[in-house]
This record gives sequence, structure tokens and C-alpha cells, in this order.
Amino acid sequence: MPAQSPKVPPVDRERIRLSAPRLNASFCAEIEKELKCDQIAIDEDERLLHSFGKSYPDLFRVRRGEVDHPPDMVILPETNANVEAVVRSAHRNNVCIIPFGGGTNIVGGINPMDNARMVVSLDMRRMNRLVSIDAYSMTATIQAGALGPKLEKDLQEKGFSLGHFPDSFEFSTLGGWLATRSAGMQSDAYGKIEDMVVAIRLVTPSGVLETRVVPASSAGPDLNQWVVGSEGILGVITEATMRVHKNPAVKDYRGYLFPSFEDGVNAVYACVEQNFPPSLIRLQDSGESELAFNMKSHPKGLRALIQKPIKKYLLHKGYTAPCIMIVGFEGESKNVKHSQLQAFRIFRKNKGFPLGKKVGQTWSVDKFNVPYLRDYIMDYGCMVDVSETATSWTQIISLHRAFTQAIQEKFASEFGHGYVGCHISHTYKTGACLYFTYAARQLPGEELKQYYAYKKFATDTIMKNGGTVSHHHAIGTEHLPWMEQEVSKTGLQALRAVKKSLDPQGIFNPGKLIPEVFIHSLLEQPLESD
Amino acid sequence: MPAQSPKVPPVDRERIRLSAPRLNASFCAEIEKELKCDQIAIDEDERLLHSFGKSYPDLFRVRRGEVDHPPDMVILPETNANVEAVVRSAHRNNVCIIPFGGGTNIVGGINPMDNARMVVSLDMRRMNRLVSIDAYSMTATIQAGALGPKLEKDLQEKGFSLGHFPDSFEFSTLGGWLATRSAGMQSDAYGKIEDMVVAIRLVTPSGVLETRVVPASSAGPDLNQWVVGSEGILGVITEATMRVHKNPAVKDYRGYLFPSFEDGVNAVYACVEQNFPPSLIRLQDSGESELAFNMKSHPKGLRALIQKPIKKYLLHKGYTAPCIMIVGFEGESKNVKHSQLQAFRIFRKNKGFPLGKKVGQTWSVDKFNVPYLRDYIMDYGCMVDVSETATSWTQIISLHRAFTQAIQEKFASEFGHGYVGCHISHTYKTGACLYFTYAARQLPGEELKQYYAYKKFATDTIMKNGGTVSHHHAIGTEHLPWMEQEVSKTGLQALRAVKKSLDPQGIFNPGKLIPEVFIHSLLEQPLESD
Repeated sequence: MPAQSPKVPPVDRERIRLSAPRLNASFCAEIEKELKCDQIAIDEDERLLHSFGKSYPDLFRVRRGEVDHPPDMVILPETNANVEAVVRSAHRNNVCIIPFGGGTNIVGGINPMDNARMVVSLDMRRMNRLVSIDAYSMTATIQAGALGPKLEKDLQEKGFSLGHFPDSFEFSTLGGWLATRSAGMQSDAYGKIEDMVVAIRLVTPSGVLETRVVPASSAGPDLNQWVVGSEGILGVITEATMRVHKNPAVKDYRGYLFPSFEDGVNAVYACVEQNFPPSLIRLQDSGESELAFNMKSHPKGLRALIQKPIKKYLLHKGYTAPCIMIVGFEGESKNVKHSQLQAFRIFRKNKGFPLGKKVGQTWSVDKFNVPYLRDYIMDYGCMVDVSETATSWTQIISLHRAFTQAIQEKFASEFGHGYVGCHISHTYKTGACLYFTYAARQLPGEELKQYYAYKKFATDTIMKNGGTVSHHHAIGTEHLPWMEQEVSKTGLQALRAVKKSLDPQGIFNPGKLIPEVFIHSLLEQPLESD
Repeated sequence: MPAQSPKVPPVDRERIRLSAPRLNASFCAEIEKELKCDQIAIDEDERLLHSFGKSYPDLFRVRRGEVDHPPDMVILPETNANVEAVVRSAHRNNVCIIPFGGGTNIVGGINPMDNARMVVSLDMRRMNRLVSIDAYSMTATIQAGALGPKLEKDLQEKGFSLGHFPDSFEFSTLGGWLATRSAGMQSDAYGKIEDMVVAIRLVTPSGVLETRVVPASSAGPDLNQWVVGSEGILGVITEATMRVHKNPAVKDYRGYLFPSFEDGVNAVYACVEQNFPPSLIRLQDSGESELAFNMKSHPKGLRALIQKPIKKYLLHKGYTAPCIMIVGFEGESKNVKHSQLQAFRIFRKNKGFPLGKKVGQTWSVDKFNVPYLRDYIMDYGCMVDVSETATSWTQIISLHRAFTQAIQEKFASEFGHGYVGCHISHTYKTGACLYFTYAARQLPGEELKQYYAYKKFATDTIMKNGGTVSHHHAIGTEHLPWMEQEVSKTGLQALRAVKKSLDPQGIFNPGKLIPEVFIHSLLEQPLESD
């Protein structure tokens, strides 16, 4: 952080003023008949809480008290019938609906954008029940508004887990995970959210789309996968039947140190290639590892005495820019032992130095906290953002290098310095996810222009080097300019066709996922991909 | 088979007459400029070969020489440019296109149905190359027209396998597998075809839909899964990038005998639940096992002497209606040993009696031959059909029992006897695939009416008992009446919307996958689900 940075605290709540809600009289009259008083909110606090997700521009704006597009109303449905009634009435009266889970989206996915029509934020938090569980078939039907901890608690009581732990776990919902094709920390073991869906229920202006609870089918394209990732533009997901698993008998997390990111990647690849994939891998590059070392409190007394010679030994052995890896194994005891035996052998072969279980435990305790460092950093006038992607194994090292160098050069030419770090967060047979974090001094008065310039630069670099525009953060508004490059013009046409058919008036989450001309004018900077 | 059944041989080729092809002059003029002479066929032999798939009604009709709807032309594209030119011209001139792989579809998926327009069968067999391979990332880009053996040979030369072995393997193509969401014998190990797709290329009348070669993404819904299973109604798949795997070091197939189907199911379930899933499981019920025993030549000499007491012992131990299971393990030697150790323990615990490797080898040799028994059976005036489905573990036994009993009762009330057997062909965490075969005497003069009555009865029974209308045979025309029940009215609307947008004139494979009123008149019997 820049030395002696001035503190830039957020404004006080009292200083934030919202424009009066624009209320569609006919819609209000209709839903007042369907819902209880406490299911409808138009007070400033609720509207403010539903104005933004958690992207850098979101935080930047709300910290300054700039709330230009609050929703006009927040509705809290409690039943499927509630949802259907609201959707029908909104469709009839041309009122916009933004499905809202936990509000943790960081790509602008839940922000109101439409200025011409009344906008409702449809907060699903009261629909959070475990509807049913089929313990023998290992499936659970869960309402979309269930937050991570509630959902896991309900499943744990029956001896099961969904095993989906995104960074946002504590504050995000099943519906949000499904709508954004989310990934969690243990997706390597249990799959991304799209891999766990057995059946889904989506309420659209044209009726309810429901799929059948079967393990697999060849009845046309998999319609679950037409809904998962649809980011609320087709309708609202009310519940889903998910594959769950028994609580693993063993959970083993530990740390390893590699002399270089390449060594670590080689080790991870060998595990995948030889079919001994750990349940979790988090391989940090030297940038991120250095940050982790610096954030640790310095050891004292006996621990310092022990650690000093180990550090010296590692430095001597070529660990000059060491990379930390957290590796986790979960499952039945015999399976874990078998996999570990093979994996540890592979790690050793690739110069991995075991750091023990303590490192794994520390990581496990802190795992959901790291993202909130951003608020602290922003207090000191810094821009901080993340870019994540996935690419084939062949391109992992080259994409990592290209991105890191490009950002570093940009920093050097503009500020003299900045931070960029990366970790591998998910692995697949055919490739892996690279998760970059970068930070630099804010340009006063041009903070959002600066952010969008970096966003464009970072994403163009990813696309040029064979990555996907997003591995698990979705599209929202922030990744819109790259959608055509990602899925082709004809692919977008297919998406638009379904949108147009199921939601002919475009009331559901307008301006998201599908690039339309009008939305660019609403963004701070007209985003265009190369 | 009925005693002294009269033989009902197929008619001679010479006795089959096709109506003259209806040629759209403008279309013909345009494609003659684009293609070489030998890429366009209007001769009777080619047209006849593209008139039918391999369903029971297909075989029944062609055996009688009734070819009412041959395609008017067969086109053999050799390049992506060829395909795009043909599609453009067909779109301009309102000519129908039926993408054709190997012609093994058994649900009417490749049969011409349109009587008003010229129909082209677009045979992809010359586009069969391995385009490229990324050995490090374990992906291969393959043209859609590659037949199973060619595709495997090309991959094997590079040390890889796709690992997709449907019954039709020898005569079916990658494009066909993708268009029908096919499953193969080793899908438990390597996934159904939809699980292996990394990227896909679809030529539509509205342009080319292409997805990005990345291991995973959250860029909207997974458009690969909008194309896979689309049965040629949106366009033609020209190539796909597929996940491949190294040739396994060990392949071990062996047989087991269980006293009952339930015991076998319990054993299979325990493997899945405890995470030791074999690469392949084929658990036959007592009906199918009895057929297998009866089809075996009787042992002589020493083998007979050995087998006799074993049989006696098993009978004594309660194996009165024994069920055969073939179980296969593939992979790295250490992994196979570890899995087998656990699985064999589970089998023993569930009264599994090991039959040794010989049974596995015999099965492996004969595995692609079984379906062709149908032609032999039809020679003797028998109806024979298959119904396959998948359902949750909770419903496996009840669905199996309901189906078997319902068909047996129907046989009893109509013929006095018939055959019904079943095997579990694929397993998942949440359920399994049940594959039924049934046969009875044909009703002379009413053969197709009889078939459609059974088809309706069988499929209604599956749907009532919680199965999917098809686990791997797709929809075509034969399963159309159950599509709405399977994917909901709104789901169908979404499918129709994409069809209408990408193929506004409906030139691609009309009458398939999406139920439309007009097609019912073309079927022998108006099919309606309950």
C-alpha cells in the first residue's frame, strides 16, 4: 500500500439519499392482495441493501453514497404460489424483476439498470427450506433462497452435505449459485454447481419450467443446463433437486511448498493425469504466496528458532520465490489413504516440501475471510479487483505469465508499482482455473474509469491467451462485452431467442448476460472487447 | 419362439421400388457449383440406405419393401465449407436437411417425414478426421462423421481413447452420439457423451454456433448442452472437441452371480455409495440371465463334470433365479487393485458368487453382436423391442418390478407367453439405467399397431414409475408424446424458441424431438401419452 495513504472512509448511512420509489399502481394493487404487509418493502434501508452487489464499482459507489439506481420495491415471497403471482402480475404490468439471493454477485448481476420501468428486487431469503431428501438416492430438494450455512446445517442434520463452498458461502444462496454457474472450494471433489443439479424449477412469465428427477436422460438437450447460468434473465429459480453426499469420514488438509509455480502446476497436473485428484487444491503463485507470508504474524521463541534453519535450507535448495499449496483430501478413510499415498509421492517428485497440517488448518479457519480484505484496502484509496478464468493445461503457464507480465507492465508504466498474484483454485482433466488478484493506487477523480480500463485490459489478455471470460463469477454487466467472443454470434442468438420467448416483455433482470446496445450507455465506461 | 413359426424373410432388394426424387431445381443448381459429382447421390441404393434407422418399425417396413418416404437426395460433404454452402442453399430454397451419421438411430430420428418439400440426407461419413489432439490437456477435436472404430483407431495411435462404446459402436458416429446424448458401455468410467464435450461446432441456417475450448466456464448457460441432444433439429454438428483419456494400463472384466436381482442391485448400489464404482457394470435380471444361459452351448467333458456340482451347490444356496453381472475395472494398476479389493468385498457381502474372468472375456467378444439377434428373431415372425430408462436408486426395484409385471400380464392376456428381461447398464450416484427387452409373437396384419400399443404401454409404465422417457436412445418420433411430461410445457417452449430462431423455415430434421401436431398423422398410430 502507498506509504501514508490518506484514509478514504465510506460515507455515513445518514448521508445516503435515495430517490422516491416509482410505483406501478396496478402492480401494487395486485400484489397487495396476494402478499402479507411484511412481504413488501419500499423503505430506504431495504432498497439500499438491494441496490448493489459486491463488485469493486458497487463498493466504490456505495462507499461514496452514490445510489443512482435503487430498486423501487423489495418483495419477499414465501411460497411458490407467491412467486408465481408476483411474476404474473409483473408480466401483466410491465414491471421489472431482479431475482435476489444473497447479493454477493461481483459482476453487476443484481443491480437495477432499467430507468423507464418500476423495478422489483425479488429477495428469495424466506424460501430457504430443505423441501425433501431422498437419502438412499442421495438427492435433496432445496428452496432457492437457502443461504449456504442454513442449507448445510439442514443437510448435516440428515448426515449429508452439498459440498458447495464458494468464497461467498456465508452470504450466498443456492439460487444464486445456480443462476451464476458457481464453483466452490471443493468443486474438484463434488463438481461445479451445474454438475450437482438433478432437476430444477424456474418460474417464468410464460409458465413454470420443470425438469424430471432422474439421474440422466437423453430426452433432448439437458434443460437443467438451459436454466443454470441464466442469471435471472429467463425467470426466477424457486427450487432445485441437488445431488448430495454423505459426510466424509476423513477430512485432511495440509500445506506444501514448491520452488516455483511451474513445479506446483506440474505436481497438480500429474495428480489429475494419473487419476489421484485431491478434493481441493489451492496453488498460489509466488506473488500470492509472498503476500500470505507477509500477512502472517512473525513467529517468536522456540517456533522462530525452528523455522529459521528450515527457511535457510529451503532458500539454499532453490526455493527463492516459493509457492504455497493447500491440498485437501476427503472421503472414506481407505480411499483417502490410497489417494494421499500416490499424491504425496507425486508432490515429492516435483520438489514439493511438506508444510504439515497446521497450514491447512489455518487456511481452513480463514478461508471465507480473505475477500473482505478488499474493504480494508479500499479504506486506503486503493483499487483492487479479481479476474478469474479457466484454460487448458497446455495454456495454464503461458496465460499465467502473460497476464502477470501485462498487468505488471501496466502498473510500472502508470504507478511505479502495484500488486498482482494468482492461485489455481479448481482443476479438471483438461485444464484448470486461474484466479488473479491485482491492486494499485486509485487515480483520484478517475477511479471507475481506471477500474474499467483495467477490467478491459485484464479480460482482453485472458481472452487473447485462451481463457474463458469467467470460470465462476458469471457475466452480469461486467463481462458482457466478451460474450459474443465466448459463445459466438449464433450462440447469443439462441440465448436471445429463449429470453424473448419466455420473457417477451423483457421484465427479468434486463441488461444482464445478453449484450444489448442500450446497456452500454448505463455503464461508467463503454466497454468493448477487441 | 413359437414352435414351428413360419419363416418371414425380408423381400429381395430388386422388389423394392422408390418414388422418383423430388428435386428443387434452384437448390440443385447451387450445390452442383459447390460440390463434386460424387458428393451428390440420387440413385435408389443410396436413397434406400438413408430412408430408415434401425427401429423395429423401420426394420419391419424395409423388410417388407415398404419405403414410403425415402430422401430425395444424399449429399456427402467433405469440408466445413461444403456443409455451410449446402445449409445456406437449403435455407434459401426451403429444402429439408436430415443430418445422417451411421443410421443406427432406433427412435425414428433420421427418417424423412416431410412430404411437401425436397428432403436431403446429409451424410457426414466423409468428414471423419481427427482434426487435432492436445495430448497434454487430453482433448481431441474430431469431425462429426467419424465412425466409432475409425475414431478409436486414430486416437489409439496417439495413445488415447474416447472410451465411448454404445452397442452401435461399429456403425455409429461422433455426431450421432452427440445429437442423441448417447451413452456407451463404459460411461460409468468416462461419462455419457455430454460429459465429455469440451467444445462444439454446429452449422445452422442462422450461422455457425461455436463454443470455446475451455475446461469449465460460467459464461451464461453451457451452450454445449444446448446443442448436445438437439437431434439435428437446430443444425448439423460438424466437429467437437472431446475429453479423451490415456489407454488404461489394466482392463479387467469378470462375471458374478447373484441369487436375485435385488441382491445384485444392493451390491452395485453399495459400490456407488462407498465410492468404489467399477468402470462397467452390466447386471442382468433373472429373465435376461436365463436367456443368456439358454443361448450358451452346453459344456462337455471335463467342464461339464466341474460345472454340474457348482450348479447344484448354487441351487442349494438359493440361486434359484440367478442373475449374472459383468463387472469391469479399467485404469492405472494401483487404482484398479484398490477398487477391486473394495468392490469384491461388497459383492461377497451381497451373496455375489465369482464366475471368473472367462465370462467377462466372452461378454467382451460378443458385446457388439447382441442387438443383431433382433433380425434373426424377426425372421420368425416375432415382435421384439427395447425400452430403456433411468431412475433414482429409490425407485430402481419398484420400476423394474412394475415394468416386468405389466408386460408379462399383457403378454399373458394376449398371447399366453412372451419374453421380458432387463439389465442395469449404467450407474450414477443418484440412480441407474434399466434396459428392458421384450418379445412376443407378431399379430399378423397388425404388426405395427401391435408395436405402437406396446410402445405406449411400456413408456407409460416407465413414466408412471418415475423413469425418464429415454436414458440414451433419444426422442426422434417414437418418444415424442412423452416430451411434455418429461421437460414441461415451458421447457418445450424454450426448445421451440431456439428452433424457430436458428432455423426459421424449419428445414432441419422436421418432425423430430419437438412435438408438433402435424407429425402424428404420419405415424402409423396416433401416439398419445396418458
